[in-house]
Amino acid sequence: MVTTRKERVVFIGAGNLATHLATALHGAGYDIVQIFSRTDTSARQLTERTGCSLTTTRIEEVCPDADIYIFSVSDAALGELIARVPVRDEALYLHTAGSIPLSVFSTVCRRYGVFYPLQTFSKNRAVTFAEIPLFIEGSSPEVTATLREMGERISRQVIEATSEQRRHLHLAAVFACNFTNHLYAIAADLLARQQLPFEALRSLIRETAAKIETLSPAEAQTGPAVRYDKNVMQKHLDLLDDPDEKEIYRLLSRHIHQFATSHTQSQSAQHE
Amino acid sequence: MVTTRKERVVFIGAGNLATHLATALHGAGYDIVQIFSRTDTSARQLTERTGCSLTTTRIEEVCPDADIYIFSVSDAALGELIARVPVRDEALYLHTAGSIPLSVFSTVCRRYGVFYPLQTFSKNRAVTFAEIPLFIEGSSPEVTATLREMGERISRQVIEATSEQRRHLHLAAVFACNFTNHLYAIAADLLARQQLPFEALRSLIRETAAKIETLSPAEAQTGPAVRYDKNVMQKHLDLLDDPDEKEIYRLLSRHIHQFATSHTQSQSAQHE
Repeated sequence: MVTTRKERVVFIGAGNLATHLATALHGAGYDIVQIFSRTDTSARQLTERTGCSLTTTRIEEVCPDADIYIFSVSDAALGELIARVPVRDEALYLHTAGSIPLSVFSTVCRRYGVFYPLQTFSKNRAVTFAEIPLFIEGSSPEVTATLREMGERISRQVIEATSEQRRHLHLAAVFACNFTNHLYAIAADLLARQQLPFEALRSLIRETAAKIETLSPAEAQTGPAVRYDKNVMQKHLDLLDDPDEKEIYRLLSRHIHQFATSHTQSQSAQHE
Repeated sequence: MVTTRKERVVFIGAGNLATHLATALHGAGYDIVQIFSRTDTSARQLTERTGCSLTTTRIEEVCPDADIYIFSVSDAALGELIARVPVRDEALYLHTAGSIPLSVFSTVCRRYGVFYPLQTFSKNRAVTFAEIPLFIEGSSPEVTATLREMGERISRQVIEATSEQRRHLHLAAVFACNFTNHLYAIAADLLARQQLPFEALRSLIRETAAKIETLSPAEAQTGPAVRYDKNVMQKHLDLLDDPDEKEIYRLLSRHIHQFATSHTQSQSAQHE
């Protein structure tokens, strides 16, 4: 049975991820009825993008008659907020965290799930939600089907993943995004000290990311570490002042070399 | 005085960089007259793309009457090859290495320079040379002008850089490209062990690279390390088996946190 009534959604949290997800759901026809945030400013900023007029900083004031409650808060705050939110059997309770299992809801709610968009969200940067993979996990086949339908209204890629798979996804995302971005930061710093503009690296960064659309990262690797050019590597270490940056250079170079060696071995093994 | 005769170029080396640079120069009207490579196969592969019919594996056979000699070989091999190539006062001698100073030519040649394209080159992936920044350094203003004219025939970005700046550029490129690509490799490995396709990360990797076109890397940072969420970081460390990967995780997380702290401090200092 298809209901014509818009589904009523409450957001618990108003951070970067909540902002982008609430905006996408609003655009897909969901009714964002209330936003809870510890700080009133964050909640108010979000109401502008979602047409939602009700905000609160007190969890006791969360409205008890919504259809869907989406928790998008820090992992540390999640458990306590779930315990204090009004719970109804018919409502659906979701969180958006990579590292928290589905079972965080199990003793409190009847219908619950995870709705994890794998992307890096900054408040002042627009994202195209349609291109973001959404990983879903439901407490029952009925909930999973609901999550799939909900996901497909905002994204082209909706994928079922277990809690175990999701925490590995989150870890992989830290390497591929947060750590990668930090390497950009170190590079930017090195250029700034030589009065060179960061723009000089943009083409390289773009190509490094684009390459792995057609090659595996192992095939795409270039540079002194994969060649194990000790001479160049030593010169680079001599240029670095920060002991942590030296150690990052040493560790990553060694690991690249090990990966390349084991990759070649497994390739030759396949050919035997 | 403009000569209508095509300039005759010899390539010393037939690796990834040589392949792409020779192809671009050939396309821009240079006459690639000979390719030297230690292995005949590499040289022969390159002749197909550049219309060059002469190859050699013996440095003594390099033709003595070319206009430009471009050395694109490993840093370790460069010095010896420069010493053994035929040298004429009128000819121009160039290398393409990030970490080698201009002065490597100074005792042997009269007109020399560096022609350093900052990009990651793999043989089986086409690149658009026009978008690659070219860093040039000449032994005289006349040579620098020649290098600029040559560079502008194949690239939209030709930038003068000293040997000192160039070695920092090369180091920054190792962080922004080789190390970044290795983080992709670690992430791919984590997903493969959970039967998840690497494709799940493509959108994230694309956005991470695209973000820094409008935000600085420091502004673009997200994730557990910048929030210093010890709980999530400890869970991630528990998921990693490889001791080097654990250490990479620890070091990069700590460094992200330190960067964020000092960045905030310097921002507040600016506002005071």
